[in-house]
Amino acid sequence: MKKVAVIMGSDSDFDVVKGAFSELDRFGVPYEAHIMSAHRTPALAADFAASAREEGFGVIICAAGMAAHLAGVMAGNTTLPVIGIPIRSSFDGLDALLATVQMPSGVPVAAVAVNGAKNAAILAVQMLSLSDDALAAKLAEDKAKMSRSIAEKESALQEKIAKL
Amino acid sequence: MKKVAVIMGSDSDFDVVKGAFSELDRFGVPYEAHIMSAHRTPALAADFAASAREEGFGVIICAAGMAAHLAGVMAGNTTLPVIGIPIRSSFDGLDALLATVQMPSGVPVAAVAVNGAKNAAILAVQMLSLSDDALAAKLAEDKAKMSRSIAEKESALQEKIAKL
Amino acid sequence: MKKVAVIMGSDSDFDVVKGAFSELDRFGVPYEAHIMSAHRTPALAADFAASAREEGFGVIICAAGMAAHLAGVMAGNTTLPVIGIPIRSSFDGLDALLATVQMPSGVPVAAVAVNGAKNAAILAVQMLSLSDDALAAKLAEDKAKMSRSIAEKESALQEKIAKL
Amino acid sequence: MKKVAVIMGSDSDFDVVKGAFSELDRFGVPYEAHIMSAHRTPALAADFAASAREEGFGVIICAAGMAAHLAGVMAGNTTLPVIGIPIRSSFDGLDALLATVQMPSGVPVAAVAVNGAKNAAILAVQMLSLSDDALAAKLAEDKAKMSRSIAEKESALQEKIAKL
Amino acid sequence: MKKVAVIMGSDSDFDVVKGAFSELDRFGVPYEAHIMSAHRTPALAADFAASAREEGFGVIICAAGMAAHLAGVMAGNTTLPVIGIPIRSSFDGLDALLATVQMPSGVPVAAVAVNGAKNAAILAVQMLSLSDDALAAKLAEDKAKMSRSIAEKESALQEKIAKL
Amino acid sequence: MKKVAVIMGSDSDFDVVKGAFSELDRFGVPYEAHIMSAHRTPALAADFAASAREEGFGVIICAAGMAAHLAGVMAGNTTLPVIGIPIRSSFDGLDALLATVQMPSGVPVAAVAVNGAKNAAILAVQMLSLSDDALAAKLAEDKAKMSRSIAEKESALQEKIAKL
Amino acid sequence: MKKVAVIMGSDSDFDVVKGAFSELDRFGVPYEAHIMSAHRTPALAADFAASAREEGFGVIICAAGMAAHLAGVMAGNTTLPVIGIPIRSSFDGLDALLATVQMPSGVPVAAVAVNGAKNAAILAVQMLSLSDDALAAKLAEDKAKMSRSIAEKESALQEKIAKL
Amino acid sequence: MKKVAVIMGSDSDFDVVKGAFSELDRFGVPYEAHIMSAHRTPALAADFAASAREEGFGVIICAAGMAAHLAGVMAGNTTLPVIGIPIRSSFDGLDALLATVQMPSGVPVAAVAVNGAKNAAILAVQMLSLSDDALAAKLAEDKAKMSRSIAEKESALQEKIAKL
Repeated sequence: MKKVAVIMGSDSDFDVVKGAFSELDRFGVPYEAHIMSAHRTPALAADFAASAREEGFGVIICAAGMAAHLAGVMAGNTTLPVIGIPIRSSFDGLDALLATVQMPSGVPVAAVAVNGAKNAAILAVQMLSLSDDALAAKLAEDKAKMSRSIAEKESALQEKIAKL
Repeated sequence: MKKVAVIMGSDSDFDVVKGAFSELDRFGVPYEAHIMSAHRTPALAADFAASAREEGFGVIICAAGMAAHLAGVMAGNTTLPVIGIPIRSSFDGLDALLATVQMPSGVPVAAVAVNGAKNAAILAVQMLSLSDDALAAKLAEDKAKMSRSIAEKESALQEKIAKL
Repeated sequence: MKKVAVIMGSDSDFDVVKGAFSELDRFGVPYEAHIMSAHRTPALAADFAASAREEGFGVIICAAGMAAHLAGVMAGNTTLPVIGIPIRSSFDGLDALLATVQMPSGVPVAAVAVNGAKNAAILAVQMLSLSDDALAAKLAEDKAKMSRSIAEKESALQEKIAKL
Repeated sequence: MKKVAVIMGSDSDFDVVKGAFSELDRFGVPYEAHIMSAHRTPALAADFAASAREEGFGVIICAAGMAAHLAGVMAGNTTLPVIGIPIRSSFDGLDALLATVQMPSGVPVAAVAVNGAKNAAILAVQMLSLSDDALAAKLAEDKAKMSRSIAEKESALQEKIAKL
Repeated sequence: MKKVAVIMGSDSDFDVVKGAFSELDRFGVPYEAHIMSAHRTPALAADFAASAREEGFGVIICAAGMAAHLAGVMAGNTTLPVIGIPIRSSFDGLDALLATVQMPSGVPVAAVAVNGAKNAAILAVQMLSLSDDALAAKLAEDKAKMSRSIAEKESALQEKIAKL
Repeated sequence: MKKVAVIMGSDSDFDVVKGAFSELDRFGVPYEAHIMSAHRTPALAADFAASAREEGFGVIICAAGMAAHLAGVMAGNTTLPVIGIPIRSSFDGLDALLATVQMPSGVPVAAVAVNGAKNAAILAVQMLSLSDDALAAKLAEDKAKMSRSIAEKESALQEKIAKL
Repeated sequence: MKKVAVIMGSDSDFDVVKGAFSELDRFGVPYEAHIMSAHRTPALAADFAASAREEGFGVIICAAGMAAHLAGVMAGNTTLPVIGIPIRSSFDGLDALLATVQMPSGVPVAAVAVNGAKNAAILAVQMLSLSDDALAAKLAEDKAKMSRSIAEKESALQEKIAKL
Repeated sequence: MKKVAVIMGSDSDFDVVKGAFSELDRFGVPYEAHIMSAHRTPALAADFAASAREEGFGVIICAAGMAAHLAGVMAGNTTLPVIGIPIRSSFDGLDALLATVQMPSGVPVAAVAVNGAKNAAILAVQMLSLSDDALAAKLAEDKAKMSRSIAEKESALQEKIAKL
């Protein structure tokens, strides 16, 4: 199976990004995580992206805050799909969101919600599932489980309300 | 090859969305386009999404403006990757962007730039390229061509400046 | 009397939404509360809305945060008035507010203030009061009481200022 | 049948607000339209709201731009449901939207989208339909017609795409 | 000397507004403080504003949060200058600021900064100083004192830096 | 009578600012207009403000766009009330509004709406009216006229609607 | 004298950026202009920045819109001061401004106003003037000229007002 | 070597601004720090800026919050490059950012990120390095060190992940 690369722009992003690790583990999708910065290690980032496909990666997830250039810079150096997680550290994450999503024509980045690490991972799994029926089945199962968990919360809610 | 579904919430989105059609045509990726509304034809939209994978689709692209619920509603009914194009029709597209990208945990949407139909198509092609080396090669070629077109624009710029 | 449905997108909305329960209790208006998600249990939400009128509901109140699609999705499946409470969980609630209020032509949602659960309930009572004179009288009484409570606060203020 | 009051803060709002008139006409709901200003004719506005219920009105729709106080001031003087249409005239309508929707606890306003006159009217009809089965039937019919009109647009789209 | 009226929309505004009391005390300007609400006690607010000039007031300061209509409603009922203090309680005070400052032509409100109670008081004093030379002298003195206090802070800064 | 100073930061502000001239003319209030810039002629601006009171001015109105520092700089050099008109030239005027209104404690500026030149003039007249009963009477008359003009617009509206 | 590099991300930025060329010409500062894209020609951009100092450049000005990564990417590859011009093409330029200015610690970009090409050039001249007294003298002269031009506009204003 | 002036508008800015002091110390660049206010000590600020170049300063860094006029006012009085640090104290620093960066044509301010004191210092060092090869070498070294520190954090990350 192709691997997922999870790149964070700063080690301070770890607490958010680990939400992606647990999802990828849950789906049994192999991944590598690295710290690389569009501004502090630009060559490293460019090289990683440029060779990612041949190194066996299928998707690159990038997490960065403020003027979040990481996903865009990666996308400029690869033809793999790049997912950007805008990290909230200023302006409620609006700067990171806009810097991630507003890419110019020709170089897309797939943005998820501010601090949406878990969803970035699921989106990567969905992409990989296009050629992996087992993953597709796991995703369907997961969707069913989510629905059941709402049913359990509904029961808890009725108990709570009965006690109001 | 898996097909791409391009769904628009309103026929007024056509002029933006056709940018996606030309890109998909350029890459030779088959697609279907439909008008479906999360609010006006909710059952149709839900059914389409729910059966999209078995109908041979690999990616669903959704375009919607204002309170853009279409991509999210589709994503709630499929395990395929869903790409959302926020359409600019009010608040410079900020309402559509936030309604597209700020999805709750468990149900991702891949947002591209406001009115970013061309990028939505390229992102879909990138996803399909994970299991299609010919597509991957075309993407790499396209990237090189983009770079060469900048070189041509650079020449034009030098002529323009010489005349200033 | 017709019932009010109070639907929340996540159990984490409970602490805000219970403000609606106490108001409905105060006015003696019957209600049911449920957890349903536009994204995690889309079919359940659609079915509930579609049959709400014949099940005896008069108003549906929906509370959701982030890309708050719940009220819109409900409104797409019913002709009952739908009230949306944008829940503050990111961007100070701006994403939820815009996703709730910016509905396309033909499918209105009645938005109240961010976290405005109490007002959502009062608005529902006002709607029900159109054919219920007793409720209308209670609302008038309540308005008078609000005015009197300001008078009491005015007295307290004068004491506070005298001590400055 | 109870009447709908459509109040606009300025005659410059007419071109937007007339979208509400045509909807109300379509549903056969009687209405009166007036110009009243929270700032220029405050007493007139207060008096109108205070006596609206006994004058046979069931809903008050208010349209105002900028610091849109009209709906709030009306709501302070009546126990009828008040619907606010934020008019776009500055800040893309954000000032009018926030001034309309962010009402304090106890005095709700039901906000619709910026310039959403048509939806304000439909919302009013939905409220009146709670005690009027004929109106409820018309709303259901209207919903079905909306869905069919999407089907027609879908056909037109397929023709358009075939010609691309 | 004419009095200043300091009106707050809610007793929860007291902690901010008391910054105005201390300034007015410092300048020896008489004032009255009241709680009145544009929405909960509209008649009271309108009457107060309408008779304020003949009751000996020269300036009305209004503090309100969210959809802050108080200053505008007051301004609609008086020809005295009305100063609005937007109170921060949601959206960082942006809703209150816009609802205070974006008044329609013909009915001005003088907005100060979010939570700027002290400045509202100084502005009121400046207005009263136009016909009161003693007040004007006190304002000049105050300005000089402010400048001197910066000089003291400068000395403290140099000590702090010397210790770095 | 004290004069009003109307200062604009750039001659491009003239078309907006002339709305203030006509109001001041209407009320018979003497004024001077000047172009001065906080950034291009800082000394001139500071000197003007510093001597404005003794030169017979009662109020200073400043109009500026973008990083609108003019009103604030003026306010730093005078104890007269300073009214700021934020001019719309970028960000819908939000930059100019915030740069005008968010003054630090001790140095107030009275902000009016974006491009609100007419209201700035009326606010200045209101300030001058505190010691000028004739002006106060004119303001009251003006308010009555505004109310009557709404009545005329109401008649026009009824005719318009009758023809719909 | 060291040269200024003026880099634009797209040839569509030319009409804004030429405002910088005329300023640099006016001050007699040599410059080169190029089109380079952080996303379409990332290697070219990185190489240019990395060798800019030894190629005789003193300042790099970058103009880019939307998710404006160009200035940041340049700054990641050089120790020269980098000036960023946010180009207005979406969200009134807010996305470009935030993506330019919100750089992480260690890698500054000097942002000027949205579309502020002329100011970017003057800022570059100011930087070069630190070791070039002739340039410093020209800047002082220019400042005086700006002040004189305001005086001329003042005269024109007085004539305009006399004719009102 | 030319000195850097670090001016803060209020002593409450010290905790942010000291990040600039440590950077300047690290690079061995001499600096002076002062408290001066565009509004409370306008003459002092203007005089300081006007004589800064001849007093041996090369760059002026200004830190201010809210309606941050300090950098602009300084820039109006000097031909030295002025760097503005927007201080976060309201609206997440958006008011300070816009008031700092949106300078009119002819009078640039170089804005850095909200609270970006460290980057302001590095930018000043970059400017001084244009005529100081030793500083340029230190900056290059610093850049290399930053890159190495990322490598160390990468190792730490791998250990952390191994333990997940």
